[in-house]
Amino acid sequence: MTATAQIGVTGLAVMGRNLARNFARSGCTVALHNRTEARTRDLVDAFGHEGTFVPTRSPEEFVAALQPPRCLVVMVKAGGPTDAVIEQFAQLVEVGDVIVDGGNAHFEDTRRREAALRERGVHFVGTGISGGEEGALLGPSIMPGGSAEAYRSLGPLLERIAARAPDGAPCTTHLGTDGAGHFVKMVHNGIEYADMQLIAEAYDLLRGVAGLEPAEIAEVFRRWNTGRLDSYLIEITAEVLTHTDARTGRPFVDVVADRAEQKGTGRWTVQTALDLGVPVPGIAQAVFARSQSGHARLRRAAESLPGPETAEGAPSRMAADEAERFAAQVEQCLYASKVVSYAQGWDMLRAGSEAYDWGIDLGSVAAIWRAGCIIRAAFLDRIRGAFTERPALPTLLADPQFAQELGEAQDAWRGTVAAAARHGVPAPGMSGALAYYDGLRAARLPAALTQAQRDYFGAHTYRRDDLEGTFHTQWGGDRTEDRTD
Amino acid sequence: MTATAQIGVTGLAVMGRNLARNFARSGCTVALHNRTEARTRDLVDAFGHEGTFVPTRSPEEFVAALQPPRCLVVMVKAGGPTDAVIEQFAQLVEVGDVIVDGGNAHFEDTRRREAALRERGVHFVGTGISGGEEGALLGPSIMPGGSAEAYRSLGPLLERIAARAPDGAPCTTHLGTDGAGHFVKMVHNGIEYADMQLIAEAYDLLRGVAGLEPAEIAEVFRRWNTGRLDSYLIEITAEVLTHTDARTGRPFVDVVADRAEQKGTGRWTVQTALDLGVPVPGIAQAVFARSQSGHARLRRAAESLPGPETAEGAPSRMAADEAERFAAQVEQCLYASKVVSYAQGWDMLRAGSEAYDWGIDLGSVAAIWRAGCIIRAAFLDRIRGAFTERPALPTLLADPQFAQELGEAQDAWRGTVAAAARHGVPAPGMSGALAYYDGLRAARLPAALTQAQRDYFGAHTYRRDDLEGTFHTQWGGDRTEDRTD
Repeated sequence: MTATAQIGVTGLAVMGRNLARNFARSGCTVALHNRTEARTRDLVDAFGHEGTFVPTRSPEEFVAALQPPRCLVVMVKAGGPTDAVIEQFAQLVEVGDVIVDGGNAHFEDTRRREAALRERGVHFVGTGISGGEEGALLGPSIMPGGSAEAYRSLGPLLERIAARAPDGAPCTTHLGTDGAGHFVKMVHNGIEYADMQLIAEAYDLLRGVAGLEPAEIAEVFRRWNTGRLDSYLIEITAEVLTHTDARTGRPFVDVVADRAEQKGTGRWTVQTALDLGVPVPGIAQAVFARSQSGHARLRRAAESLPGPETAEGAPSRMAADEAERFAAQVEQCLYASKVVSYAQGWDMLRAGSEAYDWGIDLGSVAAIWRAGCIIRAAFLDRIRGAFTERPALPTLLADPQFAQELGEAQDAWRGTVAAAARHGVPAPGMSGALAYYDGLRAARLPAALTQAQRDYFGAHTYRRDDLEGTFHTQWGGDRTEDRTD
Repeated sequence: MTATAQIGVTGLAVMGRNLARNFARSGCTVALHNRTEARTRDLVDAFGHEGTFVPTRSPEEFVAALQPPRCLVVMVKAGGPTDAVIEQFAQLVEVGDVIVDGGNAHFEDTRRREAALRERGVHFVGTGISGGEEGALLGPSIMPGGSAEAYRSLGPLLERIAARAPDGAPCTTHLGTDGAGHFVKMVHNGIEYADMQLIAEAYDLLRGVAGLEPAEIAEVFRRWNTGRLDSYLIEITAEVLTHTDARTGRPFVDVVADRAEQKGTGRWTVQTALDLGVPVPGIAQAVFARSQSGHARLRRAAESLPGPETAEGAPSRMAADEAERFAAQVEQCLYASKVVSYAQGWDMLRAGSEAYDWGIDLGSVAAIWRAGCIIRAAFLDRIRGAFTERPALPTLLADPQFAQELGEAQDAWRGTVAAAARHGVPAPGMSGALAYYDGLRAARLPAALTQAQRDYFGAHTYRRDDLEGTFHTQWGGDRTEDRTD
């Protein structure tokens, strides 16, 4: 077999298939491989006209079809299968070739794999790919890690198939070495969880407090989507809320079981944030809200718990102008809470980059999320701008523009959180975002009391604001203070 | 050396020393060992009159001093040192002997160690010990795992030194096999984090909203400590708030740096809860509040963020009767939030017990936390009662008495959360607890929208309330629905 292909894709389930088609449509010659050959044939039969495919029947043939330095993309289930497939190809490729894992691997697994392959002279690139099936075909946001050298061969190919931001820039860039790409993709998903939770709460408030119907709420979201909240998730929220169930004639959202599932990246984000010591309560609340929704035993047991009197029976319907004012208030709350969630996400990107020495360019991450991925949104361009202008910006909340917007939003934000509490609408994401904001700006936190308690019961010592050193008070004795360092 | 000792303690830092003294004072003959012999001598010199100690100078001598089946308690730093010491003694003991790890090990490490020693015929008991230095000496709450057989030798000794509940029962029991003890201790600490965070928020509200001084707030806590909040943590809160700093003459809580530290068990609890799929937002918020308090860069950057107008300058001071009413409202909020945190903790105990097949008796856990440990409180006896009467109680919130109290508290609870939002006092624990309560009792959650969005962008499918099976809507096409299972 002549080596004619610039890129190869192995694992041709829907994501792999669409990615291969995307490469072909961009003008690449694409080698194809799948464990069961039928899938390879099906792809060529159905989409062979879209570009130049080189179907192969074995790993050996697949590798032989690739021009050196070979770039081959593995699109198989994360976990055990990925290890097996990587090992198989690692034995077939040559020094300087590039093996790409485009699945949702944990970044620590990617670090392990990259180190193992580096020892053998093979480049391993863990790459986040966001945008679902459609994104894979039409242009995803692509988040590669791995060595800079690997990116020199692989990058130009990825840039051909990535989504284009409004300014025409491809939504991919080299994020950092080893696991940086999968780390960034994990945080992307964590932010996605938080964003979806906030949207769910906004919907729930419009329904439970204002008494609006799903179709009316769809209109509200459609309007929001023309403003600063303009984003894919707001857009599809309107689509879902507009949809009528064909079987029952009822609003679709009312027939779907109210149990949100999860596949693990949200959980990983929170667990990793805990290891890094970064507070990401917005992501945690979203993950917990999903697990709470699926906790049937608890929900059944608790459904008779009393709610506030205002919430008894069906929510009373607000008059049109009142509902409009309330919706405007909820928009402020949603926007402010969203900015806080993204601030937490970027805080985590910085912490991960520092802990693993990746040198992630925080502005670039925003740039490549502007299109293709699930959280694509107009306001990512503003985040890009904020970190491009001030790379050392310690938190998004300190950006003058965002700070000003939060200041303007805060009355409505506080009012909405208070309304949720009074009406019995669960708003863990919004109330948590406000608490994070108030916690950060507090001149003094009650953590002083917490630390003093720790010294009381566990002799954990404390610091003082007016003196250097660590101290312990003899709580059980005469309460004198000792310096302990 | 004649084998005269019923128990041995190796590792004589403050916890080990106090535990050894406790054993001796209870009438046990206690073998002592420490890597550096001076510590052993010091203990005997200072406290030899308290009971019968057998100081030893080597691991071999230490083991020889113990009556078979030997029970030896390892009190060394968690992690690497523990493994090294365990291995050292595993080589010296005989089949049927019991090695106890009384440190704060991760329960997964305990499971690993227990399995390894079981293969060699040695019992390994991971034991949580709570109560700090003072508890170790005067009676801690002791949470042993390991085999039932090991408990037959070890249990009677632990029961002699454990704290006594008000009804005279010793605060220890066999919780379950392998890592059950350290798991329960981990959850204890997680609940402790949540409890301390709620107390900190209550203090912050009384200060920031009512304008009370620390000494006045101490009075409020002292009063609360005579009611249903009666607990060690409330008691020491009053002590800390009463304390005046000798150097400055200022309230002590105002000179302590407002950065709360943590040693890891709270983080472990949240990470494990995420693996188990149990929502524990109260513990997560507490862990994040501590990391936020220590996040100097963010706090400095955010300190100029605007707060609500009501909070400008010093808080206005409420009139005495108004402050009293507000304090009563905060008490309701604190109590309700505390019940929710404990409900989350017990939910996690149940989930862990099921996942690892430990058969933990949920009522017994409450029973052995009634005294000796940091979260000891009058209301643990009521939790004990709730789970003893109904072992299958799905959540503490479904207990009729607690449910009634929450119902009675909810107006004040909602009002306090709303007041925190309006006044800019960060209350992530209280608002999160309320959201958890409202989420559990909700007849319908907006998770339906979340799951529909997941189907929209990722073809993740959904369930319906009216039909069995899983479904997918052709969102990109004609929006017909397919059954996918």
